[in-house]
Amino acid sequence: MMENSENKEKHFKVPNKHLTKLHEDVLYHIGFSSKDDLPKLFGDVKFVCMGGSAKRMFVFAKFMQEQLIGIVDCKDEPKDICSTDRYSMYKVGPVLAVNHGIGMPSLSILLHEVMKLLHYAKCSDVVMVRIGTSGGIGVKPGTVVVTETAVNEMFEPKYHLAVLGKIKSRNTPLCKDMLETLLSCKQETDSFDVVKGKTLSTSDFYENQGRLDGALCDYTEEDKMEYLREAEKHGVKNIEMESTCFAAMCDTVGIPAAIVCVALLNRLEGDQVSTPPSELKQMEMHPQQIVSRYIKQKLSK
Amino acid sequence: MMENSENKEKHFKVPNKHLTKLHEDVLYHIGFSSKDDLPKLFGDVKFVCMGGSAKRMFVFAKFMQEQLIGIVDCKDEPKDICSTDRYSMYKVGPVLAVNHGIGMPSLSILLHEVMKLLHYAKCSDVVMVRIGTSGGIGVKPGTVVVTETAVNEMFEPKYHLAVLGKIKSRNTPLCKDMLETLLSCKQETDSFDVVKGKTLSTSDFYENQGRLDGALCDYTEEDKMEYLREAEKHGVKNIEMESTCFAAMCDTVGIPAAIVCVALLNRLEGDQVSTPPSELKQMEMHPQQIVSRYIKQKLSK
Repeated sequence: MMENSENKEKHFKVPNKHLTKLHEDVLYHIGFSSKDDLPKLFGDVKFVCMGGSAKRMFVFAKFMQEQLIGIVDCKDEPKDICSTDRYSMYKVGPVLAVNHGIGMPSLSILLHEVMKLLHYAKCSDVVMVRIGTSGGIGVKPGTVVVTETAVNEMFEPKYHLAVLGKIKSRNTPLCKDMLETLLSCKQETDSFDVVKGKTLSTSDFYENQGRLDGALCDYTEEDKMEYLREAEKHGVKNIEMESTCFAAMCDTVGIPAAIVCVALLNRLEGDQVSTPPSELKQMEMHPQQIVSRYIKQKLSK
Repeated sequence: MMENSENKEKHFKVPNKHLTKLHEDVLYHIGFSSKDDLPKLFGDVKFVCMGGSAKRMFVFAKFMQEQLIGIVDCKDEPKDICSTDRYSMYKVGPVLAVNHGIGMPSLSILLHEVMKLLHYAKCSDVVMVRIGTSGGIGVKPGTVVVTETAVNEMFEPKYHLAVLGKIKSRNTPLCKDMLETLLSCKQETDSFDVVKGKTLSTSDFYENQGRLDGALCDYTEEDKMEYLREAEKHGVKNIEMESTCFAAMCDTVGIPAAIVCVALLNRLEGDQVSTPPSELKQMEMHPQQIVSRYIKQKLSK
């Protein structure tokens, strides 16, 4: 009895008290329901790994499957288990790999529904890792940036959202232990650097990131460089479009979280992503290698 | 000579003056380049139709192909012409159908790149239509809402974005002519209503829309109902996640634009989208029918 109730205590729970009133909870965008046998399907999940692109998350799931054969039961090729076309999800033993689309609104829907999935599945000791692509600030293309703090366009460690018409601010801390362990997963033989730094999270790829090559741009190159250098002074090492929302939501529900992105270009030297696709694919593997070593290390304990 | 220069005047141009300095412009997320023969590939585009889901936009492209056979040259099944997995794009004669993912950041990337595509392709007389799904306010599920004005979470007709760390506000007007013509495309035999109203655009599906069934929710049912009734008082007929950004960007570049969404549920009666998938598919056709009639009417002139 004692052991059972202790185990129950450890199950991950989302803080929303209204859910108990629902007869059924349809996780509309990922295509599951609280009436499915979620504990059987997902009860063993320990690592939720996510990134923007569905294809990239399939590559990651396949890579993890190769890495974990013999360690966990995962002999079949990963299949997309989302029944909708909004998101794609793959399960490889205790690793759930899912894409979140582009930007914080798309990410937030996925997080709400995946967090409820973990809740109904009675998961325990889960961590979340965002594996992304980004623009670097003063780092070489191919560098992996592990996020120390996620900041908004004003360089504040905050995520603002409008709840019932009023602005609510959430803090954006990430897990220090995960950060340090991920940094230590760099190996001598790696062809790329792994650094820590602040990550700037924006709501657009063009104007919000100071690019000169969007359809709209009413500032000068000097204005742009001033903003990027200001970012650099604040310790920003890379720019993407999800980190503040990801950090704030994981912090609010109490899931330890980390963000590991590759910088595809150095924004102090240009705006265009004109690297050939084959090289981009190679670079996209860098954060996947770091995260796979992290997962293997945790599973071997 | 005279005629040529007049024609040139009419080509759609994006307002960003920096683009002339680019040797090549890689439209990174949709997989085209200014070095492709864009006038040949896209020069005849007149209607850019977009929605969140890739599968839904394929359904629309296929529907338009059936509708336009014999009117324009479009005998082959539409194929996805984006070489990336970020977005999917289909061309059916003068109709470009493309998905924009979920939320304004994802939409804004697509708009920047599609607007530049239209610019390099030297298109003229282009209009844009967003064909979406939404939650209704005081309307029957299945109702088509054509947007009069797009408003943000504070019910203002504004789109705010952070450019170089400073908040910039853009207005969100839509084309009145398109609105009236779209409303007139309703037919007696339709099983659904077509209404006009304000559309509330949010940055999240759960907390920002006052849902009680997210992973996070720290307000009461009374708070939620108060906000939704306030929305209703402001003339809001439906809630989605893209309209203010869509309206503001189209207005800024000078493309006439309209938003036509189906309401999948009445939010005054609940939060969950628990309608069976087959009925949802049926409802998703309602705005497609209205927009296809609009396009056929314009092409017949």
